[in-house]
Amino acid sequence: MIKKKQQLNPYISVDCVIFGFDSDRLKVLLIEREDHSLNTESTLALPGDLINNEENLNESANRVLKELTGLKNIYLKQIGAFGDLNRISKKDDKAWLQTVRTNPEARVITIAYYSLVKISDSNPKASSFATSAKWYNVEEIKALAFDHYDILRAALSQLRNEIIHQPVGFNLMPKMFTLGQLQKMYEAILNKKLDKRNFRRKILKLNILDATQEKETGVSHKPAQYFVFNKKNYNSLADTGFNNFGF
Amino acid sequence: MIKKKQQLNPYISVDCVIFGFDSDRLKVLLIEREDHSLNTESTLALPGDLINNEENLNESANRVLKELTGLKNIYLKQIGAFGDLNRISKKDDKAWLQTVRTNPEARVITIAYYSLVKISDSNPKASSFATSAKWYNVEEIKALAFDHYDILRAALSQLRNEIIHQPVGFNLMPKMFTLGQLQKMYEAILNKKLDKRNFRRKILKLNILDATQEKETGVSHKPAQYFVFNKKNYNSLADTGFNNFGF
Repeated sequence: MIKKKQQLNPYISVDCVIFGFDSDRLKVLLIEREDHSLNTESTLALPGDLINNEENLNESANRVLKELTGLKNIYLKQIGAFGDLNRISKKDDKAWLQTVRTNPEARVITIAYYSLVKISDSNPKASSFATSAKWYNVEEIKALAFDHYDILRAALSQLRNEIIHQPVGFNLMPKMFTLGQLQKMYEAILNKKLDKRNFRRKILKLNILDATQEKETGVSHKPAQYFVFNKKNYNSLADTGFNNFGF
Repeated sequence: MIKKKQQLNPYISVDCVIFGFDSDRLKVLLIEREDHSLNTESTLALPGDLINNEENLNESANRVLKELTGLKNIYLKQIGAFGDLNRISKKDDKAWLQTVRTNPEARVITIAYYSLVKISDSNPKASSFATSAKWYNVEEIKALAFDHYDILRAALSQLRNEIIHQPVGFNLMPKMFTLGQLQKMYEAILNKKLDKRNFRRKILKLNILDATQEKETGVSHKPAQYFVFNKKNYNSLADTGFNNFGF
């Protein structure tokens, strides 16, 4: 078969909910639409693009992630397909599509993904589909372009479900962390306070953390010990899943 | 806006994994491809169809389900989008598409759903996309057309995960059932034996079953009591989810 030139498929897109954690709050990486003259509910949108005809769906999502963050091989999970008839019916969304798509009237089904990245590793930058990308506090987002707010809510719901059954949250953490920092990440995602003693008991019982010899420095309270995760145990737990985290 | 005539979208399909339970084994409703002359890995396929341009995705899935089973408003959940470049690359699959599609060379992304039906309520029949549909034992299926075997495995994996966190399995059961029959359903889906005493304790603790005055008749063992589920408690549990079923 002769390999065809890479061509955008005008009917299928991918959109990515990229979560990060800044040691205090759950963040999402959003792009800003260029045209501020539009009287719009929100100029912010999820990063995404039409798929290429020679790409698998997850390859398209990885391309968007790589262009935007410079990162490869990051945690990526499909949320599902979003194809409501009215998903691009808002007037300002349609106007924006006129400026960026060659076939702006086409019905586009989007396949949504979420990914978890370490903010410190990522380097958000302009790309073929965005002039700028920035981290925003998830809890402060009340509206987005198209159906992207629905997609963000679905991603958050799946992440909350997943983080109590799989140890995926470590994708968000720096290499070394204290138990207090880890608890903060769970609290930020689940949007609730957790009992300190109970959290420590449960997380240590999973046997996926190794204590290091290092401790915090330059803090006014008693310095806490740093942990790293045990990749071998972590991976075997991630493969089997566990249904009893119970926070 | 003038409503356009319903038109098939040649690039997007839906496929449905329809699960049933025959009081002993987990079943799946499959259609048979007409052309037996094809030298094919399997003549069986999941029921599905191209979407109409005026339908939402779940409306398309519901249409397929209704045409095939005669049932409306049945439990339906999206599995995700399947769009691998080679998903319709098998020779016999391509040959089959030539006979049923007007644009058989188009790249088609499929959105897969799974649904849970009571076998006794359903009435599988020929439809616009199938000459016949029959129930098969899930465990005996080793190959299907296209990427449908992958979709079946993904559906089964999601069902197994869901049934230990949500009381969805009741969609498969008749109105009245014994605890033994209910246990058999869990065992068929999870593909493992469960401890009887442990199962009863956990399922009764959920407070979603009401005992009836009726008992089994015509059995050689001590007749077991029939239960129905308590819709109110069931729905409130289904809304919140529970993360601790622990079978």
